[in-house]
Amino acid sequence: MRNLKMTIQYDGSRYKGWQKQKYGESTIQYKIENILSKMTGENIQVIGCGRTDAGVHAENYIANFHTECELTINTMLDYLYEFLPEDIVVKEMEDVHERFHARYNAKSKTYVYRIDNNKFRDVFTRKYIYHTDEQLNLKEMKKAAEILIGTHDFKSFTNLKSNNKSTIRTLNYINILEKDNIIEMELNANGFLLNMVRIIVGTLLEAGKGKLSTVDIQKILREKKREEYGPIAYSKGLYLKNVQY
Amino acid sequence: MRNLKMTIQYDGSRYKGWQKQKYGESTIQYKIENILSKMTGENIQVIGCGRTDAGVHAENYIANFHTECELTINTMLDYLYEFLPEDIVVKEMEDVHERFHARYNAKSKTYVYRIDNNKFRDVFTRKYIYHTDEQLNLKEMKKAAEILIGTHDFKSFTNLKSNNKSTIRTLNYINILEKDNIIEMELNANGFLLNMVRIIVGTLLEAGKGKLSTVDIQKILREKKREEYGPIAYSKGLYLKNVQY
Repeated sequence: MRNLKMTIQYDGSRYKGWQKQKYGESTIQYKIENILSKMTGENIQVIGCGRTDAGVHAENYIANFHTECELTINTMLDYLYEFLPEDIVVKEMEDVHERFHARYNAKSKTYVYRIDNNKFRDVFTRKYIYHTDEQLNLKEMKKAAEILIGTHDFKSFTNLKSNNKSTIRTLNYINILEKDNIIEMELNANGFLLNMVRIIVGTLLEAGKGKLSTVDIQKILREKKREEYGPIAYSKGLYLKNVQY
Repeated sequence: MRNLKMTIQYDGSRYKGWQKQKYGESTIQYKIENILSKMTGENIQVIGCGRTDAGVHAENYIANFHTECELTINTMLDYLYEFLPEDIVVKEMEDVHERFHARYNAKSKTYVYRIDNNKFRDVFTRKYIYHTDEQLNLKEMKKAAEILIGTHDFKSFTNLKSNNKSTIRTLNYINILEKDNIIEMELNANGFLLNMVRIIVGTLLEAGKGKLSTVDIQKILREKKREEYGPIAYSKGLYLKNVQY
């Protein structure tokens, strides 16, 4: 039995996210399982590194699947490239140890959020970068980010409903870079709760607009309640960039 | 009477090109004239710097129009930004001399053609960059480009049917740059004939693929016949970058 690891790039605009469990055919997982099952003649189950929200993109999403199929890696890559929709590309594939598990073995994940802060939107990136002409104060955003870095209970930063699961995560870093009014926020954590990246970004955007102070953000973190806090950022600016194993 | 010069960015994917004369409502000119006419209450005629083919994009298209409207530049820019479709943005506007004419006064134009030469397409640029996995030989493309630079009769490089108009143009330069398998070809000429940029690019791509030699290209140029020669490159990779006055 082979265990194959895939690196996947996708434009999430048309999809309801990675996971098929709830949304079926309009998910990236469904599209890939469907083509892999046709290719192998088996009922392939793909294990993804995690969920991504509707509309979120991926530069290097990691997933794995088990198969008896004996085709070469290149043949499989070419098959997937030909039959997957044009907004999903399996860029790389490799045989890995039978125990490799894309979700359980992930040590941390890196997301990037892109913001166009010019007066007018750029027509060529309008579907892939969040545009706002409200001038963002990067210094305030960085101060706000500092508060969130480290190991915290992120209950105020998730829409996860369950009370039984731990909402403690370690946010390793948030880097905020700016060039020509294009802002990139890179976030790395050992795991992200439901909507957590977008809520953190939404909160930092409020800080950048002067609507939330560092004191407000400290309070939000301390109160451990999602209700009434920071808005959720639009998904079109968000990319799963890398997964660390 | 004011004469206003506009710098326009557009994603040409949905349009049949700039000029409304033949294609009416699905042109960029129509969309802009329509909004300007609503804004001013006048029947505005926009003078563009030239035609662009269906599907071709623009980073800095130049156009001008005359009006009695007394609104400020910023008010007009905001109005256009709000009411134009999201794939057309008037980035800048300025009052210019009454005799300024976007087409007649243009001394030269610069176009850029972008090619993704990686094995697999990039999902985020798939609508804006032409992808080919056939390995392109840049040295051969540059040698072919050298032949076309200068003042020539470009009759073999246009689909213009008229026999009465001059097909002599001066191609000032073709720069071919490559980074991470993304190739940019920048072309500057005192004017481009119908489809000329795309036919030149299509011809250079054939040279890059080893299908046309420098001898072939010299012959094509010399014969001054469009029939049977170089294919026309896909429009989605082409951008009008700048106009020089």
